Formats: sequence, structure tokens, C-alpha cells
Amino acid sequence: MATPKRDYVRPLDLKTGRIDMNHGAGGRLSAQLIAEVFVRAFDNEFLGQGNDGALLPIPAGERLVMATDAHVIFPLFFPGGDIGCLSVNGTINDVAMLGATPRYLSASFILEEGLPLAELQRIVASMARAARDAGVPIVTGDTKVVERGKGDGVFISTTCIGTVRPGLEIGGARARAGDAVLISGTIGDHGVAVLSKRESLEFETAIESDTAALHTLVAGVLAAVPHDAVHVLRDPTRGGLATTLNEIAKQSGVGMMLQESAIPILPQVDAACEMLGLDPMYIANEGKLVAIVDPESAGDVLAAMRAHPLGRDAALIGNVTADSHRFVQMASRVGGHRIVDWLSGEPLPRIC
Amino acid sequence: MATPKRDYVRPLDLKTGRIDMNHGAGGRLSAQLIAEVFVRAFDNEFLGQGNDGALLPIPAGERLVMATDAHVIFPLFFPGGDIGCLSVNGTINDVAMLGATPRYLSASFILEEGLPLAELQRIVASMARAARDAGVPIVTGDTKVVERGKGDGVFISTTCIGTVRPGLEIGGARARAGDAVLISGTIGDHGVAVLSKRESLEFETAIESDTAALHTLVAGVLAAVPHDAVHVLRDPTRGGLATTLNEIAKQSGVGMMLQESAIPILPQVDAACEMLGLDPMYIANEGKLVAIVDPESAGDVLAAMRAHPLGRDAALIGNVTADSHRFVQMASRVGGHRIVDWLSGEPLPRIC
Repeated sequence: MATPKRDYVRPLDLKTGRIDMNHGAGGRLSAQLIAEVFVRAFDNEFLGQGNDGALLPIPAGERLVMATDAHVIFPLFFPGGDIGCLSVNGTINDVAMLGATPRYLSASFILEEGLPLAELQRIVASMARAARDAGVPIVTGDTKVVERGKGDGVFISTTCIGTVRPGLEIGGARARAGDAVLISGTIGDHGVAVLSKRESLEFETAIESDTAALHTLVAGVLAAVPHDAVHVLRDPTRGGLATTLNEIAKQSGVGMMLQESAIPILPQVDAACEMLGLDPMYIANEGKLVAIVDPESAGDVLAAMRAHPLGRDAALIGNVTADSHRFVQMASRVGGHRIVDWLSGEPLPRIC
Repeated sequence: MATPKRDYVRPLDLKTGRIDMNHGAGGRLSAQLIAEVFVRAFDNEFLGQGNDGALLPIPAGERLVMATDAHVIFPLFFPGGDIGCLSVNGTINDVAMLGATPRYLSASFILEEGLPLAELQRIVASMARAARDAGVPIVTGDTKVVERGKGDGVFISTTCIGTVRPGLEIGGARARAGDAVLISGTIGDHGVAVLSKRESLEFETAIESDTAALHTLVAGVLAAVPHDAVHVLRDPTRGGLATTLNEIAKQSGVGMMLQESAIPILPQVDAACEMLGLDPMYIANEGKLVAIVDPESAGDVLAAMRAHPLGRDAALIGNVTADSHRFVQMASRVGGHRIVDWLSGEPLPRIC
């Protein structure tokens, strides 16, 4: 019996190599890609278990929260971020919006044949950094490869598990007439940053994506007020602030009245939107949250937000109204009211 | 102030309609797709919460398990299944292989512009049926749309959460010299079924995918033997039985000796593999599991498998050996031993 060569695979060529179909076939080359790119970057005790799933401890008595997002953003790299950190922050935020502490992430990759390994490694490094910064390990994952022309570089689906402490009840159906509506910062940054990169637009002042994990901001807010003061938290991603507020109004069976002049927006984002014919109310954000809170706690929530680096530009932007039509309305700068409807068109495809 | 028309969206045309970019934009049409296709099919109390994540109870004292898989199988529909049921069964199985009870699923969809809504609905119905049959609700999800030519119909990533009872320790690193190696049924069915569909091959006897959720089979096995008798469970998917056994040998630092004549295979699968020049040891399975168990419990495990509809053809196929080279070897029908190496080529791309 001849002794077979067990280790004939050379190290991955991370400088000039590319993904090929073998990397998705489940054999030795798949194992090598996982070991040399993913496990090396995401390094943690859970991923190191080496099974098809991960065993995870959670605090006794807490309830579980699960959220998932597919990420298909184009281009993969944009001012202020990339698909990697975006995919980590995105599901962390979905979990945080239920008042939960994010605990674990999974990641599944759909790679297009021909993807430069250097790009993949850069994306994976960005994910690893974002996960480490957030303190949420990527504990399990999967990788598939599709033929050239059947994908678009990299798609990443992440799922985040979190736990929420007993007694905390936050959700989209809990807004009540009289509640205060706050936003944690400027709107439209992410969408305009991606669009500018996609269209090769240049602005005098750089516009960067706001992609960020918001769970520590949430923790700061929750620590500052009574446990039942925060009714709704939600991150206004696809569809922008307007769509997010309409979703909440629908879920809670309420209306809202916003003050246009109170909504924070960077001058360069405002100018870019005007130039491009976009309404920033419908542009995706990736590092902002809407908080709908007891009016008596609004001041404390605002102060807690402003005390956090991700909430410096936080503002009280309106209040919840009793409205059987569930209209979100806006008092404009020039006087008069208008309905702020759901996004119905498609200003920005593949924005996350 | 004019009264805007709030409900101008007509019901989705599920007969002749197609996915367009608006369905992924996060606005009203996204909400409609989610409501009329996904929530309607997956109907459960958790998904009904309507937040970006789901709040989930789990049994006190149990440990959490999380597993994720991306599914890019081509074609979307194949003999014995489709990407929908496959994506549900696949992650349920990853969780079950740790001895855990699968509890909750998330699903994220990447849809290609132009996908017929009727196909999507058929896939979603198949997922819903598989989830219901398995008793594992799909509690949260996400949908993105990419332009025509940037995807391939539907990609589905699923994540499954399960819980495992105290004291049960099953994992790929626990195989020990002397252990018995069992397989729950015939090998190669899934891969050959998909390939035959892809290549429009016809065989005298139909070959169907074995896609199935294996958690009840696992429960049957665990109930039949002492709690520490089952050391490793794993489903031999991509890369087939050969690659799965090599993974386990590597993780556990052991070798294996298999009996070729003991490995169950359907005659039509055997014939198809011969015709196509494929080795069934490397062909993906989607409804089979490998169990590596204490030799004294092997008989009881085999009997428990055979008593379950998904384990009727179960067989004892070999044993674990002390081998610092971690070789998986096979005693062939004609005498002599050969090394069964990892899959290193790509017999079947996009098989799951």
C-alpha cells in the first residue's frame, strides 16, 4: 500500500489567488479556505469546536432573541465600511433593538467564482474586527461557491442570537399616543455614501457610511431610565426613517407627528440628496436608531444618547399621536403638514 | 391636506408575476411580499411579532446550539425535493448532530430579479411544510433582491437554534479507537438525484433525493442507549461519506477501517455512479447520518435506527482505529485495503 500524500495542498495564495468552484465543494480545499481565512480571522473557542454547529452558554433566566439579515450591498467596499462590518453590525442591531444583549453570530457566505481571495480576506478581516469590537463572536458559519455570473462577488447572511433580561418589553407594537420620538443622529449618511461610491460622485466634504453596532448605545439608554420607559427601538435601515416610522405606526396602531426642522442631517448629505433628487427620509441608515419612549423620560433618553459617541447628534423629532389612520405626518419648516408615506419606489437598490 | 391612498398596492400576482427590484427595497412592496408570501406560509406566533428579530423561550438549564447553512443548489427543484425543504432540513440536521433538539429557524432569501413569484411561492410552501413536519418554526427572516444576472433564482441561508440537555456530549472530536461506525442508510441518493435532473439523465428506476430532517431519528437512537454511548453524529453532505469520516478522524485524532461490502447503496445509484464515473463515497447525502458509538451499544443503536422510517437501511460499516496518521481505510470487496481520502476535486458543484 502506497503512502498517500496527505498535505499536498499549498497555502492559499491570498495575494493573487481567486475563488474557484472547488472552494465550495466541501472537500479539502473547502476545509483549507475555512481554516486559513475564516477560522483564523474569527478565532474563538466556539468556532474552534469544529462541528457543523456551536454549543453556546447563555445566562439563566434570560429570554432568547434571534435575528437574521442577508447582505448584498454593492459595491462591496464603500466610504466608511464594507459588506463585512456591515453584515456584523446589521444583525447585532436587530437584536439590540429588542433590548437584548447580542451574544453570538453566525455567518454564511455565497462566493462568486473568480472573487479575488485578497478581497475576501479583507472582508473577513473587517467582519472579525467588527465582531471583536462589539464583543460578539462569530461562532459558526458556512461557505458556498457559485459559478461566475451567478452571484456578485460576495453575499453574506448573518444571524445574531441575543438574550434579554426578564421584565424588559421592547417592540414595534408598544408605541402609545403621547410618546416621544427620538433619533440617535443624522439621517441618510449610509445610503448617500454608498450611492456616491457607486456613481463615482465626489463631494466637497466626504460622506461616510454610519455603519456601527448600536448595542452599547441601547445599553446606555436603558440604564438611564425606568425599565418600562423605552417602548420601541428600531434601526431605520432600508426604506429609511420614513418607512421605519410607518412600520411602527402600523404595528402599534398609532400616528406620529414629526418636526422637520428637528431631524438631524449633515449639510453635505442634505446637499447631495438635493442634487440627486432623493429624500433623505427614505435613505438607509446603518448606525442610527429610533427610540419611542415615555414622554417623561424623553429628556433622560436624549441625554444618555448624547453622552455616547454614537448618539452625539441625537434629537427629539416628534411625538406619537392617536390616529386610527396610522398616518406619519410632518410639520414642515415652512409651515403646514404633509403625510410621510412608506417608501414605494426604489431609490437605492442593494443598499445593504 | 389631501387624503393619500394608503392601500393602492394590489395583491401580488402569484400566477404570472415576477420579482422586481422593488421587492427588495424595504418599502411597501417588500412588506407586501413578506406578508403575502412568507408570513402567510410560515405562520407562527414568533414571526407574528413583526419585529426585526424574534423573542424565543427555551427550556431552563439546556445549552444552546446554533448552526447555519447557505443553500445554492441548482436546479431549484429536483427529484425528491427542492431548495426550500432542503434548506430547512439541512440546518435542522446540523443542530441534531450535536444531540440537540432543534427549536427555531431563521431564513434569509437572496432573490434574483425576474424570479417567477409562483416559483418562490412553491419553494416557500415547501419550506413551511418541512418546518411544520419537523416541528421547528421559522421565526424570523430577511429578503434581498439582486439584479438579473447577479444571482441565480433563489439562494436561501437558514440558521437553526437548538437546545441540548445537560450531560449529553456529542461532537466530532469524541471518536475513540474501538468505536463502531454506523450509517443510517444508503449513500449517494441526493447527489445522484440532483445530477440526473441537471443533466436530464433518465434511469430505469427513479432516483430521489433523501432530503429529510433527522432529529427524530437522533432522538430514537439517544433514547435506546446510555447517555454517553453516542460519541459522534454527523450528516455526510457535501464531500460525501468519505470526506465526513476524514473530518471526524482529523478532529478526533484517530483512524477508521471500513468494510466496503457493508456500505448500503441503492442498485440504481450504484449503476448511475458507475455510468457517470463517480464514486458514491464522495456524493452528497441530505438525509443520512453517521454515528460513532461505544462498541457495546452498536447493536442497540443499529436496532433503534432500523426501527425508524429514516433508518431502515442502517448498517454497521466499520470501526475506529488507533492511527496517528488519521487514515480512513477501506477493506474492499475483492480483498486488500485502500486509503479513502478527502474529496479533493469537484464532482458536483452546487449540490446543496
